Amino acid sequence: MTVKQLELPALVDHCARLGIPAVGLWREPVAAYGLEAAAKLVRDAGLAVSSLCRGGFLTAADDEGRTRALADNRAAIDEAAALGTDTLVLVSGGLPAGSRDLVAARARIGEALAELAPYAGERGVRLAIEPLHPMFASDRCVVSTLDQALELAAPFPASQVGVVVDTYHVWWDDHAPAAVARAGATDRIHSFQLADWTTPLPEGVLNGRGQIGDGAVDMRAWRERVEATGWTGFIEVELFNDGLWARDGVEVLEETARRFASEVF
Amino acid sequence: MTVKQLELPALVDHCARLGIPAVGLWREPVAAYGLEAAAKLVRDAGLAVSSLCRGGFLTAADDEGRTRALADNRAAIDEAAALGTDTLVLVSGGLPAGSRDLVAARARIGEALAELAPYAGERGVRLAIEPLHPMFASDRCVVSTLDQALELAAPFPASQVGVVVDTYHVWWDDHAPAAVARAGATDRIHSFQLADWTTPLPEGVLNGRGQIGDGAVDMRAWRERVEATGWTGFIEVELFNDGLWARDGVEVLEETARRFASEVF
Repeated sequence: MTVKQLELPALVDHCARLGIPAVGLWREPVAAYGLEAAAKLVRDAGLAVSSLCRGGFLTAADDEGRTRALADNRAAIDEAAALGTDTLVLVSGGLPAGSRDLVAARARIGEALAELAPYAGERGVRLAIEPLHPMFASDRCVVSTLDQALELAAPFPASQVGVVVDTYHVWWDDHAPAAVARAGATDRIHSFQLADWTTPLPEGVLNGRGQIGDGAVDMRAWRERVEATGWTGFIEVELFNDGLWARDGVEVLEETARRFASEVF
Repeated sequence: MTVKQLELPALVDHCARLGIPAVGLWREPVAAYGLEAAAKLVRDAGLAVSSLCRGGFLTAADDEGRTRALADNRAAIDEAAALGTDTLVLVSGGLPAGSRDLVAARARIGEALAELAPYAGERGVRLAIEPLHPMFASDRCVVSTLDQALELAAPFPASQVGVVVDTYHVWWDDHAPAAVARAGATDRIHSFQLADWTTPLPEGVLNGRGQIGDGAVDMRAWRERVEATGWTGFIEVELFNDGLWARDGVEVLEETARRFASEVF
């Protein structure tokens, strides 16, 4: 998503050339390219697929919405398995239209996970609940903190349900370091993503994630915090940023790789 | 601030006419009108001043910035006393330029409070720490939750330092209800403010607070939650909203009073 202006073959080529060992994919460009073709493309280039984005949107209060969401998530799990990744990222969903009940919405996510977790486990796919920044709580994700995500994951085996640690969403939270330690100790860190916090935020706040090193997040401290739990895995850089998307994709990819080397390590 | 397009005399007139018993004032329009004149204007209309906004911005890391901030806050405390309000709202301040250290910034707020709290207490003014929504953590307020605000207030008598409960900033937080109960039990709810959460957020995210009833916040539940602690006080409506500011101020004030009656009670 950081360089969504690149077609899948160019993305894979340039990742391989730059020594980037893995790539996180999104369902839409994979579907457009063809699932099996995408899996082969990445595999032939010697890249791993670090995660697939995204399932989720599990807060519908009506039966039809709930059934549709479960079917879509099962499809996403199948796609993850076909791509050879062990991780499907879940964005949980916001409040249904007209609702003000965050507690009930979070409870419905737990109910949906009970349906999906065994299905994922049978296919070797881990569901990774991503807490989004509280500014998305009403319209995108009622799970706002790592504590909440871990609470939702707790009833299930870690091999089926865990969490995403994304610096953009949790950097401000003074409970996050303890939650990271707890998640690491229970093998529930299924994805670790980086984006920097920069202001002013753009209208709609979705596409203002900062390039690594440009903002308020201490990237090195976050990497050390996650790795201190014994976690080893791919670190993803996921930038939604209109400014980066308007630039040449290869240039942005190269810049991101340089920032990753200088700011994270 | 909800109707900042109204001059102070018109604001006071229309509040009195509508049966609104108190008004929260901001320092800038008070200074422009004259401190003593403003105090007399409000007093003569039979209105109370529910709070003065705002002091704070206490995160500077350099001596000069720190000295300037303390002097400005002492002036704000004096102004609050002159206006006859017992509450000065504090917006704590963001990260200093180039800093990524939220913990150190929060510690400096505590140090500044140690200087200011006795000064406020001697003048009958309570400092009210306002946690702002985490989307303001880098550039405006490193205090993002009621838990953090209560932790900063704890070393001081409740008659000197407490917190602001503003629905806009804390509605998403599942720890907030317990924090409200704790704050109420220790007499630390010094201000209770309402604004609704509406999306999409505007560029810069500052001026998109929703009119009561337009958004995701259950206003009645929040009032009941605060009042369940035994709290009695003025409830402020504080809307920063470009759309409301572009309309006729008297019309917005009347609409707000109607919404207050229908959505909060």
